Amino acid sequence: MSTVKLWSDAEAEADPRVKAVFDDIRATRKSDFVNNFWRGLANQPDLLAATWERLKAVMVAPGALDPLTRELIYIAVSTVNGCSYCVHSHTAAARAKGMTDAQHGDFLAVVGMAMQTNGLVTAMQIPVDPEFQVG
Amino acid sequence: MSTVKLWSDAEAEADPRVKAVFDDIRATRKSDFVNNFWRGLANQPDLLAATWERLKAVMVAPGALDPLTRELIYIAVSTVNGCSYCVHSHTAAARAKGMTDAQHGDFLAVVGMAMQTNGLVTAMQIPVDPEFQVG
Amino acid sequence: MSTVKLWSDAEAEADPRVKAVFDDIRATRKSDFVNNFWRGLANQPDLLAATWERLKAVMVAPGALDPLTRELIYIAVSTVNGCSYCVHSHTAAARAKGMTDAQHGDFLAVVGMAMQTNGLVTAMQIPVDPEFQVG
Amino acid sequence: MSTVKLWSDAEAEADPRVKAVFDDIRATRKSDFVNNFWRGLANQPDLLAATWERLKAVMVAPGALDPLTRELIYIAVSTVNGCSYCVHSHTAAARAKGMTDAQHGDFLAVVGMAMQTNGLVTAMQIPVDPEFQVG
Amino acid sequence: MSTVKLWSDAEAEADPRVKAVFDDIRATRKSDFVNNFWRGLANQPDLLAATWERLKAVMVAPGALDPLTRELIYIAVSTVNGCSYCVHSHTAAARAKGMTDAQHGDFLAVVGMAMQTNGLVTAMQIPVDPEFQVG
Amino acid sequence: MSTVKLWSDAEAEADPRVKAVFDDIRATRKSDFVNNFWRGLANQPDLLAATWERLKAVMVAPGALDPLTRELIYIAVSTVNGCSYCVHSHTAAARAKGMTDAQHGDFLAVVGMAMQTNGLVTAMQIPVDPEFQVG
Repeated sequence: MSTVKLWSDAEAEADPRVKAVFDDIRATRKSDFVNNFWRGLANQPDLLAATWERLKAVMVAPGALDPLTRELIYIAVSTVNGCSYCVHSHTAAARAKGMTDAQHGDFLAVVGMAMQTNGLVTAMQIPVDPEFQVG
Repeated sequence: MSTVKLWSDAEAEADPRVKAVFDDIRATRKSDFVNNFWRGLANQPDLLAATWERLKAVMVAPGALDPLTRELIYIAVSTVNGCSYCVHSHTAAARAKGMTDAQHGDFLAVVGMAMQTNGLVTAMQIPVDPEFQVG
Repeated sequence: MSTVKLWSDAEAEADPRVKAVFDDIRATRKSDFVNNFWRGLANQPDLLAATWERLKAVMVAPGALDPLTRELIYIAVSTVNGCSYCVHSHTAAARAKGMTDAQHGDFLAVVGMAMQTNGLVTAMQIPVDPEFQVG
Repeated sequence: MSTVKLWSDAEAEADPRVKAVFDDIRATRKSDFVNNFWRGLANQPDLLAATWERLKAVMVAPGALDPLTRELIYIAVSTVNGCSYCVHSHTAAARAKGMTDAQHGDFLAVVGMAMQTNGLVTAMQIPVDPEFQVG
Repeated sequence: MSTVKLWSDAEAEADPRVKAVFDDIRATRKSDFVNNFWRGLANQPDLLAATWERLKAVMVAPGALDPLTRELIYIAVSTVNGCSYCVHSHTAAARAKGMTDAQHGDFLAVVGMAMQTNGLVTAMQIPVDPEFQVG
Repeated sequence: MSTVKLWSDAEAEADPRVKAVFDDIRATRKSDFVNNFWRGLANQPDLLAATWERLKAVMVAPGALDPLTRELIYIAVSTVNGCSYCVHSHTAAARAKGMTDAQHGDFLAVVGMAMQTNGLVTAMQIPVDPEFQVG
């Protein structure tokens, strides 16, 4: 179904650069599960390593936004980009980080609201109020 | 700059349906400022009323997600849709609801990360892991 | 403001391939006005000619959909793509072809509705009902 | 395949708020078929009710645009958003409302034309002609 | 799975307009394989012919960009539009035109980088530097 | 016009982390010009440094694709995302790296072609031919 090979565990074990990233994914997440995204990126070990390092820094390390909020922003972006895989994987991640059904309902309502007003604003080409500008 | 007329306060005062919405916007927000989006929607009083009622329910009423989180989801959607007006107005709203510079930095980092992996996933057409599926 | 030169009438007159297209635009539309899109495309005379020929066939020639309906579809596509220029030019074209304010209101309401449900469907990753499939 | 549970008829019967909406969908459409979108939204009864009420007002009630034109606008938006489900369901709806093959051909041609010129305009960053501006 | 019928070879043989295009696709590509896109477009013979003629001119004929570079641009556009079919077909075409794994890796890295900065720029609404403007 | 402050040279000089990145941008590009994107990112020094490091690795360092091809892919992504700033800055970069008018013409033609077929494919929901699948 993909445009690239998805690496098996045996193949990943045989390439030290890929093995190092897969090992760190498992250690960081405290789980043996390595999802297909990383198995596809394994074809490009440099890109695999750079993407995983950045994801750890942005999504796993402590920050000014709590982990669930970060996941909700991630799903919102992925929804508008129509990235089916990303919506699936990050909705699962949000649930794993405690998202309740009521929070999911609020999330969906906000996404629907924003989509709707985005369409209305763009179709009417509303100019930005001076009050909203900073730089 | 817009494809529709932007209603002045005087024009809004003269149409009871528009006046009712503008009055409620001012009362709800405890501010005299009515931004251009509503002045453009005023050309279609039914759509104006329906949109404002829904926005109040989704963004203003208490819910399972706090108001700032809802604004961040809103900005994320608006960013991917390339809605300049919406990014401006809801970034201003997020700041008014207490968003710090550090939180904005985290928001930007998550948006950048999600955009990047969305592109990688779609270019590789990664199939959804069975572990992520619910329904 | 653009990334390419916009050709003046004098420049267009001096290039026979560009002049031929500009002349046909004016004759077809029965108007001396040639909008900026064609002045930018003039840098690439082959692309200019191919685009104009296709636009005439799709948007001007008689067809199974009336001219206003075709414009509304055009604006809908342009809105979701966030093409400010295209929204402006085709909203003007729709008005020139008789679009009333009430029709514009309906158009905006449908765009807003579709945007909203698109977001909800994608965030929930709803599978296609077998009843909807043809091929 | 979805990120949420799809409600069966039995589950819908057992929740009065969901049952009320499903009953109204069936009565309005004069059909027993309730498509998956509503079965996914059923997890959030408030959002389900609000979305259905709005859809009825925008897509079913008489208006300034005929029902088929509204469906074509809906499919255009859904196509650009890449919402596979929405393209399927509203193409089926358009056919049910009388769309001929020739009209579908015109629709496809306009969508293709708009996509093409949207890309050209954005890549060239063409400035809006003053003639197109209203507000 | 599609919203239109996919034409079999037997059906294509029976319609002279469709047969002419299928024959030319096979002759141009020196292959008997006609992919599903053309089998769907066959429902609209005029659109089929116009699309194939244009594709030949833009993607097959000699030009200022080599064939592989044109495919990479095509995949980039298709990725952002979330067109799964197009990503698949043009990644296969790029490989057939000699794309190496290292080139695919570079392509993916650039797509990821562009997506990321697109998101950052739009969220910050950075104004265009005068140095970048031409027209 | 932006949603964040754009840092002046004086402000950048006063913050060692921002100054280090601005200095490296100038040294790498052998130019005193620092464009607005980096002046906006300067509000978030960690994100500024991470983004610049990654951009250098992906766009500046030698790779399997030549620098101009990488720019064309970048512009293609930015065009579909509707990122006006990015289209401007990377079209200027492509010209600085030798893009001719004829190459720009080919680029525009491919973008237009891909946009058009993306729309047609998505509206018809064409299923992926088994011949195109790898993983």
